[in-house]
Amino acid sequence: MPGAQSAVTDANRSAGVREWLADRAHAIRCSVTRVPFAELDAWGFDAGTGNLVHDSGRFFAVAGIRVEDDSGLRAAQPILNQPEIGILGLLTRETDGVRRYLVQAKMEPGNINTLQLAPTVQATRSNYTRVHGGRKTRYLEHFRGAGRGRPVVDVLQSEQGSWFLRKRNRNIVVEAAGDIPDHPDFRWMTRAEIDELLVLDNVVGMDIRTVLSCLPPDAGHGAPRDEFTDALRRSHDRAAALFGRAEVLSWFTEARSACDWRVAAVPLKDVPGWTAGPDELAADGGGPFRVIGARVTAGSREVASWSQPLLEPLGIGMSAFLARPIGGALHLLARARPQAGLPDLVEIGPTVQLPADGEPGRTAPFAAEASTEDPARLRFDTVLSEEGGRFFHARTRYRVIDVGADFPLDVPPDFRWVTVRQLMDLVEHKHYLNIEARTLLACVHSLR
Amino acid sequence: MPGAQSAVTDANRSAGVREWLADRAHAIRCSVTRVPFAELDAWGFDAGTGNLVHDSGRFFAVAGIRVEDDSGLRAAQPILNQPEIGILGLLTRETDGVRRYLVQAKMEPGNINTLQLAPTVQATRSNYTRVHGGRKTRYLEHFRGAGRGRPVVDVLQSEQGSWFLRKRNRNIVVEAAGDIPDHPDFRWMTRAEIDELLVLDNVVGMDIRTVLSCLPPDAGHGAPRDEFTDALRRSHDRAAALFGRAEVLSWFTEARSACDWRVAAVPLKDVPGWTAGPDELAADGGGPFRVIGARVTAGSREVASWSQPLLEPLGIGMSAFLARPIGGALHLLARARPQAGLPDLVEIGPTVQLPADGEPGRTAPFAAEASTEDPARLRFDTVLSEEGGRFFHARTRYRVIDVGADFPLDVPPDFRWVTVRQLMDLVEHKHYLNIEARTLLACVHSLR
Repeated sequence: MPGAQSAVTDANRSAGVREWLADRAHAIRCSVTRVPFAELDAWGFDAGTGNLVHDSGRFFAVAGIRVEDDSGLRAAQPILNQPEIGILGLLTRETDGVRRYLVQAKMEPGNINTLQLAPTVQATRSNYTRVHGGRKTRYLEHFRGAGRGRPVVDVLQSEQGSWFLRKRNRNIVVEAAGDIPDHPDFRWMTRAEIDELLVLDNVVGMDIRTVLSCLPPDAGHGAPRDEFTDALRRSHDRAAALFGRAEVLSWFTEARSACDWRVAAVPLKDVPGWTAGPDELAADGGGPFRVIGARVTAGSREVASWSQPLLEPLGIGMSAFLARPIGGALHLLARARPQAGLPDLVEIGPTVQLPADGEPGRTAPFAAEASTEDPARLRFDTVLSEEGGRFFHARTRYRVIDVGADFPLDVPPDFRWVTVRQLMDLVEHKHYLNIEARTLLACVHSLR
Repeated sequence: MPGAQSAVTDANRSAGVREWLADRAHAIRCSVTRVPFAELDAWGFDAGTGNLVHDSGRFFAVAGIRVEDDSGLRAAQPILNQPEIGILGLLTRETDGVRRYLVQAKMEPGNINTLQLAPTVQATRSNYTRVHGGRKTRYLEHFRGAGRGRPVVDVLQSEQGSWFLRKRNRNIVVEAAGDIPDHPDFRWMTRAEIDELLVLDNVVGMDIRTVLSCLPPDAGHGAPRDEFTDALRRSHDRAAALFGRAEVLSWFTEARSACDWRVAAVPLKDVPGWTAGPDELAADGGGPFRVIGARVTAGSREVASWSQPLLEPLGIGMSAFLARPIGGALHLLARARPQAGLPDLVEIGPTVQLPADGEPGRTAPFAAEASTEDPARLRFDTVLSEEGGRFFHARTRYRVIDVGADFPLDVPPDFRWVTVRQLMDLVEHKHYLNIEARTLLACVHSLR
């Protein structure tokens, strides 16, 4: 496992940001090493439950879930259990007529390239309440308590429903008030600057992507005007949607009501087919992920050293929206999808969402269209990283596929053609769009 | 416990509906009798858990919950556990320029007056999937499956967070398609006709109130125009709100994030301070409710006989919105309130919400203002019933209090002045407004 590296390899106009990330990585000089579970400080398998837990009982646990439906047991798997509400906070201000966002170069143990772009504040509840002492989270005062700034966005959103049990974070964007002290790990960037980096592999992290998905896009970055960008512009017009607001809400409610899954947290020892060895917790016949132990060693005094478990997906996932113009306005093909770890089981996801388990799910509807390599159709195609604080090198290929105006409108009942505006109206509210759909919404925003 | 009675006692212009309810009650001739738990058919206390359960394992159970926060155990109580999504469906159509709703005269064992007004369809999942056979739910085909009509409203809403564990129902209003056969238990009524009945005690049931709260009000019933009704009209204007949309959403998210309660379902035997005797499950020192057994005997062949447990609140609750004009638009004082049984713990409730436990909560903020008897301030003041299918004679005094333009704007942080339009924009989405706030929203709608 390599230590610090240059984060960006193929950017043109983002040289300043690349230099900054390289500079911060050099300053931190931290490395991540895989270790056996027995060498994790203060982590161990609980004798009663078999769960992998921290001695304090806090942070998170690797536990189990069982999913039952009306026909009986449907699935069981290990899962990360962290029933807290964290904060993903982004500070914004307008100076000299230019709006900027305070972006952080953040080290996470599971990150590819060590550092990726993160929101201003990224803190679990344990972090920000400082239950166990530790350093105050920088800039936190803008997001919590009496002195917080004017909120532009403030909404609870879920995270990966396959890997987390009912995890969610407060996604919050705040208008900065007063003087904001500089810090070398932070940088004011325009939306256009962030959007340019979004097309690079593994640079713009998951936690800033989800926050950005909740913000309306810039007026436009001067992307070349063509039929697609015109349709994208029209997709922000509420009157342009194929289905009315009530119909889309009803489609979602129908999908939620149709799901009869009952999900229960269970001891890890009661999850059949998984074995915890000295080095990994893995599915006996091979599975979509394993859990490993990692030690973080800091070369500078800025970052503490620690060890922790990480969930490592075995392969690169794929999430894709098929898109087509309808009546001149771009529509995305959304799917209402149950996932066992989601707080309310069903959320709206991309057209295709394949787990990181090798075989690219040939049987999933529209998987063939989502796997196209036709450059005329591929409007967005980048491998982006998921949360490096819990996942090791977890990557997803995010794609927006322009399937064109001849693509059939008729789709299975759990799918629905929706406009960008309709997704934006939903993402204001908790638990409508899953994390994969939110990343893709941020990617779509960047195409203006 | 009385049998069928005339449902309405002080209506003037609603004689037709009163006669209809009396007629249906006479046709059903059913009576409800309290019985010891041992005489309930197919219900009993589980030897392991102490829960009161049905032999089939279905329907619902009287179980327990424990609530912990960062300081430890906060509360424990019995609760009704019914983790299904039911349907509350209201059929609507416009004929000869008049919009009407298909209202049901529905018998429930816990109802005061035996019959109250209900939506067209009121069915648990066990009912409508007919797991155990039984008669098909009338008019259900308009709300489920391929033939369902165009949805006007379709949203999941919670029920009483003090009595139900994570219960919710699909609130759905559908535009009727095709011929709708008549039935003596059903009647097409205008919104104005329903609203007139809403001021009568115990006539318009909870399940139709929650559905009506999700519908915009009529253009106006010709209520005398005065400063209050003018302010109510202006309260539907999005531009008239004291706080912007983002601020209201942020206030809600802050309240949700601040709640550190962890709620766990536990066996009833692990709830201290409650004792199950032969006739009742009750709190040792007196409490807000008890659980009893009831037998329903039908005098006609239209209704089957059965027995079941019912939760009986010991006293009449009170839920009140304080209201005042701000900038000429009526604002309601909402409170973000955690309740242990709610699906996501925190929802928006009325200004004051007092449990049915005698002492009218003198210490609750604004309880004095909510208890006024000044007729100039009391814009709405009616005792309405909660769900008679699970609760015995559960009543709440619903009040809308006009506190006038001199009332302080400055309120504690969990309170917020919001317009009627802002509540309507939220009630479109799942789990923002609790059931008490929704009943009051329906009452406010009736004041136009």
